Amino acid sequence: MEQHKLKELVKNMSLTEKINQLLQVTSGFFIDETVLTGPIRENGITEESISQAGSVIGLLGAKKYKEIQDAYIEKHPHKIPLLIMMDIINGFRTIFPIPLAQGATFEPELSKKCAEVAAKESAVSGVHVTFAPMVDLVRDARWGRVMESTGEDTKLNSDFATAMVEGFQGDNVGQEFKIAACVKHFAAYGAPTGGREYNTVELSENTLRGYYLPAYEGAIKAGVEMVMTSFNTLNGIPSTGNRWLNRDILRDEMGFNGVLISDWAAIEELQYHGYAKDRKEAAGVAMNAGVDIDMMTGIYSKNLASLIEEGTVKEELLDEAVLRILNLKNKLGLFENPYKDADEIKEKEIILCDEHRQVSLEAAEKSFVLLKNNGILPIKKEDKVAFIGPFVHEKEIYGTWSMLGRPEDTVSIADGAEKYRMDYEMTFAKGCNILGEEDRNLIPEHHYKKIIQEDQDRMLKEAVEAAKNADKVILTLGEHRCMSGEAASRAELTLPKAQEKLLHAIYEVNPNIGVILFTGRPLDLREVSEKSKAILNVWMPGTEGGNAILNVLTGKVSPSGKLPMSFPYCVGQVPVHYNEYFTGRPYNPGTGEKEYKSNYRDIPNAPLYPFGYGLSYAKFQYSDLKLSKDIMNEEETLEAYVTIKNEGEYEGTETVQLYIRDCAGSVVRPRKELKGYQKVDLQPGEAKRVTFQITEEMLRFCKADLTFGSEKGEFHVFVGTDSSTEEYVTFELI
Amino acid sequence: MEQHKLKELVKNMSLTEKINQLLQVTSGFFIDETVLTGPIRENGITEESISQAGSVIGLLGAKKYKEIQDAYIEKHPHKIPLLIMMDIINGFRTIFPIPLAQGATFEPELSKKCAEVAAKESAVSGVHVTFAPMVDLVRDARWGRVMESTGEDTKLNSDFATAMVEGFQGDNVGQEFKIAACVKHFAAYGAPTGGREYNTVELSENTLRGYYLPAYEGAIKAGVEMVMTSFNTLNGIPSTGNRWLNRDILRDEMGFNGVLISDWAAIEELQYHGYAKDRKEAAGVAMNAGVDIDMMTGIYSKNLASLIEEGTVKEELLDEAVLRILNLKNKLGLFENPYKDADEIKEKEIILCDEHRQVSLEAAEKSFVLLKNNGILPIKKEDKVAFIGPFVHEKEIYGTWSMLGRPEDTVSIADGAEKYRMDYEMTFAKGCNILGEEDRNLIPEHHYKKIIQEDQDRMLKEAVEAAKNADKVILTLGEHRCMSGEAASRAELTLPKAQEKLLHAIYEVNPNIGVILFTGRPLDLREVSEKSKAILNVWMPGTEGGNAILNVLTGKVSPSGKLPMSFPYCVGQVPVHYNEYFTGRPYNPGTGEKEYKSNYRDIPNAPLYPFGYGLSYAKFQYSDLKLSKDIMNEEETLEAYVTIKNEGEYEGTETVQLYIRDCAGSVVRPRKELKGYQKVDLQPGEAKRVTFQITEEMLRFCKADLTFGSEKGEFHVFVGTDSSTEEYVTFELI
Repeated sequence: MEQHKLKELVKNMSLTEKINQLLQVTSGFFIDETVLTGPIRENGITEESISQAGSVIGLLGAKKYKEIQDAYIEKHPHKIPLLIMMDIINGFRTIFPIPLAQGATFEPELSKKCAEVAAKESAVSGVHVTFAPMVDLVRDARWGRVMESTGEDTKLNSDFATAMVEGFQGDNVGQEFKIAACVKHFAAYGAPTGGREYNTVELSENTLRGYYLPAYEGAIKAGVEMVMTSFNTLNGIPSTGNRWLNRDILRDEMGFNGVLISDWAAIEELQYHGYAKDRKEAAGVAMNAGVDIDMMTGIYSKNLASLIEEGTVKEELLDEAVLRILNLKNKLGLFENPYKDADEIKEKEIILCDEHRQVSLEAAEKSFVLLKNNGILPIKKEDKVAFIGPFVHEKEIYGTWSMLGRPEDTVSIADGAEKYRMDYEMTFAKGCNILGEEDRNLIPEHHYKKIIQEDQDRMLKEAVEAAKNADKVILTLGEHRCMSGEAASRAELTLPKAQEKLLHAIYEVNPNIGVILFTGRPLDLREVSEKSKAILNVWMPGTEGGNAILNVLTGKVSPSGKLPMSFPYCVGQVPVHYNEYFTGRPYNPGTGEKEYKSNYRDIPNAPLYPFGYGLSYAKFQYSDLKLSKDIMNEEETLEAYVTIKNEGEYEGTETVQLYIRDCAGSVVRPRKELKGYQKVDLQPGEAKRVTFQITEEMLRFCKADLTFGSEKGEFHVFVGTDSSTEEYVTFELI
Repeated sequence: MEQHKLKELVKNMSLTEKINQLLQVTSGFFIDETVLTGPIRENGITEESISQAGSVIGLLGAKKYKEIQDAYIEKHPHKIPLLIMMDIINGFRTIFPIPLAQGATFEPELSKKCAEVAAKESAVSGVHVTFAPMVDLVRDARWGRVMESTGEDTKLNSDFATAMVEGFQGDNVGQEFKIAACVKHFAAYGAPTGGREYNTVELSENTLRGYYLPAYEGAIKAGVEMVMTSFNTLNGIPSTGNRWLNRDILRDEMGFNGVLISDWAAIEELQYHGYAKDRKEAAGVAMNAGVDIDMMTGIYSKNLASLIEEGTVKEELLDEAVLRILNLKNKLGLFENPYKDADEIKEKEIILCDEHRQVSLEAAEKSFVLLKNNGILPIKKEDKVAFIGPFVHEKEIYGTWSMLGRPEDTVSIADGAEKYRMDYEMTFAKGCNILGEEDRNLIPEHHYKKIIQEDQDRMLKEAVEAAKNADKVILTLGEHRCMSGEAASRAELTLPKAQEKLLHAIYEVNPNIGVILFTGRPLDLREVSEKSKAILNVWMPGTEGGNAILNVLTGKVSPSGKLPMSFPYCVGQVPVHYNEYFTGRPYNPGTGEKEYKSNYRDIPNAPLYPFGYGLSYAKFQYSDLKLSKDIMNEEETLEAYVTIKNEGEYEGTETVQLYIRDCAGSVVRPRKELKGYQKVDLQPGEAKRVTFQITEEMLRFCKADLTFGSEKGEFHVFVGTDSSTEEYVTFELI
């Protein structure tokens, strides 16, 4: 439909019809009419409003979707089609590694492929919009939703945001197999005080602009069609009611003109925040702040008419919101083709097809981070290997946000081991449940009840026997998939107690342990590290998890993932991140001078495993770090070179990382900042020279006056294997 | 000297003479000329600059001070006297409880008395200025310097700031026995990220103004003569180089016209922060930002002349700084009487006199917080009591900042028990050292070496025997005095391991344990609480500690202290404070509804012991909470009444606390905020009605537009025994 016709359409709509476009309800309302019960009706969700609701959250499937869309349009006074949205985070039915694991690939293009697959499977199932990517910067592992982020680095988050948006949307969401993306959560949801879900966020405007906003902006530059508000307050004002954030920054500065949607019931929650005295005031605040769609509460439906009548809200704001929503429907081509890609036959053909599984396998393999290895990995053909632990047969290894992930689709470690059984002597023992009785508070009760609690003594005994009779123990440990994700904050970052017991028992009889770690967040791995000879962190690897793990364990694939988020030394160290400021009294562990320096008495400042860290079966040596020159002006490009040689016996891929330090600035500058990364494949004995371009643009930051720009002076350039690299060369910007 | 003469004096001073007024050096330079070695000379501290240095940090004593002052004035071209400053925190030689403990008295008037005593002892010893009070708001127990704060509440900090300034300064610092106070650290030093000393501070301007600045402002309103900058960056800019903070806020908004001093070497550290490229730039930045005195680095002495010559710094800024310093000397009366109160005879008479000890005793008794008591305290005359633990004979119980605190002046628990020995059967056993080998990283090595490590097995055995033979064990546990204070951040908040062992061993043989806890910070007391029947937190009680403890243990005095800072459930909960915001999804433990609420999976939201909490031997019952009316306008005063009855068998003093909740605001408002407190003495069976006045002024806060004011609407009024009180009455501001 042409733009002027859309505007005309808005003009022809009644006030009620327009308000109803702003309402989003769950798919249940369309499937089961009995959900329309007392309290919901009181909240303003009537049969009429549902029949005109602008959008739906939840999956219907191609067949049901078509029926509902037909009936809806039939009934709608202006034949406006319905919009279907859903949380498709790390895959639709073919599940990819969780976003934090995808961050570990340092390969945004691969996440683009994952998003393309997810879009395809979604589109044929009748979904138009996904609530992804989440690009919230995270520095505190207590927060459960770090699993849905790509980590602690501004550039990495921004690169992944861009790639994922491109993957979901392509050039144009109207194209075949494309869906609209929704970047979230605007803004700074990833910095809750104490790592406690939904908690208060305190940030200076400089930090907000310099470190938190760029990833949202990256998604907007990539053309993202939708933005979601966040649940948190930012500096005392809830984001969902924050006009400065949503109008001044998002629309005026960033130039976003797509749809802004509230997070689930976030408009209603303005009153629980104490930012609005009642539901009606909340509706007015959110509308005036620029929120277009009210997810789930009916608070707009109930109150907008009278707010407009009273003059609290101007009708033109409503018209603008409606136009944005209709515009999205139009971009998706729904006016011309209300089914879009929904197709029952393609659902069967495409979903979980081999090609999609192959992408999932590649993403999983590349996301695994080898944290430690004294040489016991990869396992060798002569090895007698005991696979022990609660994840050996576990199939729910796809993270908390995989609503369509199914155990029967998923490859467990034991499944993945099948094709290797001829070459190794393998035994399998569960050892313990993921969570014992003493761990039951770590996941919601209804999930805990699903864990079949087997006889603990028997399991432990079998595992100990298996360990005794093996050369190597592959011990699978980690978090239950529901221990991370929304509303899954933890104050302790250790393993469940049942698993600690297992680790101790196995260690007693066979210390030749390689740990496979499943997790949705950085954990306190001090004890695991002490009691093991290797740790392979596989996060929540998704549908092809077992195959990917076996490919890496056996050396078919060398691990290449790098941590996108620091693994803290212990919970008392958080928040911790590599790009911290120096302070006036920086602690230098090299000198041993501890007094009156910025440190803790009882632990190191450094995390146990830093950002960017990850080993390979190959052994990479860096040498000859050089710059093309040591002075540059704003127009020039500098080149940084380094030579990397594989001095090991396995081939491998290294992610070479470029960090820059700005030695002094109008605001203090981080110890170093990631400015580039490249992957290099190296055969044993092979050496390659890697070149990075350094431009003035890479030296820009949010200055004291809150504008972005570079400042003249000295810079240090680090190229290395992770963020702890200390060798640098120097240049001056003149 | 008259003001116009001071100005004339500045006019007549040479550039060098003026710059030297800004230099502060340690007393060592005047006592031992050999300290003037190479590196110091290179930094710009020459013999000439020392001979004209405007001020000295460090104690000289009356006699030495007079000699040095005489020689200095004699030599000075304008006969300007020297100014002596020193860190006198919780007492000079008569040591009071640490500031955090003083906060627990909820009695600022008592801290005023302590400051008066400290001023008197200091003044006769030739000290003119103390670097106190520290009024930094603190929310993270990992930070070691919480011991020097009065806690997490804005009002309480502000009240104590005012009282301490009044105590040190009186009406006029020129009066007999008065010294100038220096409020510190401007600003927000108490909020380092991760609780790590000197670390980055991130705060929104609203939080800075609404919660952190009022205590500094309280001190300024009370007429404090000096302010000290803080070491930290605030939102990317080091405070010591922050012109907005030091000129726009401190001078223009708050109207401070006294002296602004850098913290130790903080100007030099601008370059380590990466805020200045070298020492010279640092000097210019600090001077332009408004810092008058350069503590210890000679960075002004070396660079200001050339900075002025080049025009980077205007000479009038220097003149203003010099005038402020001379003004302070003049207010102290030093031009007329350069000795001020320094007097060798009075030093002997006054210091540690009975009257001073009495103030210390009262402050200690009132600072103790009874955290738990199942009835085993107070001890009864028929009891066989074993005093066990490393603090039984310990005399270094005066905190880290008590530079003149001496063991021989101090009353240990064993000393304090002497006069009660006739009435009780008492035994004493050390049990363990404060720190064992496994705890040695918890304090600086040179302090650790001073601990005489006795035979652990023998000590433990003796203690276990003593416990076996006792009715009650009084078990003394806690932090070494050097575990808190500057640069004493801890990532774990548990007891030293040697003491954990002792607790376990004693618990095995006699669980009838009452713990006396020594600490400079809130600790994780879960285990102590599980394994004891009573906990009396005595902080670091000072000179009269042992007497105060015995008076309370025996019931001569009923404990009445209240926590000025939350004791977290565990370190994974910090930062934690009572006046948090609601969030949009507040967790209500009463409902048991945990999912999708703001909480942790594994621990409660509530600290183990909340702000304002503290038990008594008396039992207080609150009833009949009422308001004089339920609507008020801006001119009116409302009254809140509550009745408190002592239903116990001991007399006692209750600190009745008034909290107010503002139900909705232009920025979100805390769950509740302390707005008043009153102490009530009650005999057994006695009841009293307490009245609080509520005025519009008490309802003001830092609004969204950053101005202070109240907003109309609903308010909840809580009157209770601590910050967890849930019963409230409601009024409306119209």
